[in-house]
Amino acid sequence: MPKFKQTFATADATESAFYDALARADLDALMALWADEDEIVCIHPGAPRLVGHAAIRASWEAIFAHGGVHIKALQRHAVQSTMSAIHNVVEEISSDSGQAERHVLATNVFLKTPVGWRILLHHASVAPGAAPVDTASATLH
Amino acid sequence: MPKFKQTFATADATESAFYDALARADLDALMALWADEDEIVCIHPGAPRLVGHAAIRASWEAIFAHGGVHIKALQRHAVQSTMSAIHNVVEEISSDSGQAERHVLATNVFLKTPVGWRILLHHASVAPGAAPVDTASATLH
Repeated sequence: MPKFKQTFATADATESAFYDALARADLDALMALWADEDEIVCIHPGAPRLVGHAAIRASWEAIFAHGGVHIKALQRHAVQSTMSAIHNVVEEISSDSGQAERHVLATNVFLKTPVGWRILLHHASVAPGAAPVDTASATLH
Repeated sequence: MPKFKQTFATADATESAFYDALARADLDALMALWADEDEIVCIHPGAPRLVGHAAIRASWEAIFAHGGVHIKALQRHAVQSTMSAIHNVVEEISSDSGQAERHVLATNVFLKTPVGWRILLHHASVAPGAAPVDTASATLH
């Protein structure tokens, strides 16, 4: 299947495109953001680990059957080196609005590849209570 | 407080030292493994995000009050670049032996620093069921 893969010049741009693709339930755009590595890893909150394109694609396809997922990535902590970027964010998920019993934390790891910055790992998990206000961090949106 | 910080030549050696320090409940050895960055992140399973040395140290001190934590890091998926290493492992925790209702997944991120490989991020979370057997991956121990 021929597909156009956009090249992103920064890890931030790739991360924004990731959450945009989730909101639009755009499976092809989402999967084009991942690195061409066998070792890519995706962990949805409270779910087993998925490794490789096929398993990760199938999981998002099942999620998108219910529509897009609207997430704001907030309170980002980021460390960048020449070839990789490590982000940790609080994911504010629209369907959770009003819920204070839990929040979602995500580690997003990006690699610089010859075709731009790509996702290597997305590890999301649930934490109890409302997200603590983190005044020291920058917000993504 | 003067303390001796060992220099580790590989991310694998730092990861082994991390789990060794947990088993020995050696707080100083554990904290010496983390990068000298304000942005270091530690997420214990089902717990809020901790950022920075003080918060991370306090959390492990509380855990070690109950003794060492014996973890085998198995089924590792790893991607290494010049300056960073991204590991994802299944943590087999001794106190969980016999439990098949849950397992723990951990993302460990290491940075190459002038004083060896150090931990930048540890993100652990709980997944349901027994850990699936992952024949494609290498084991750490």
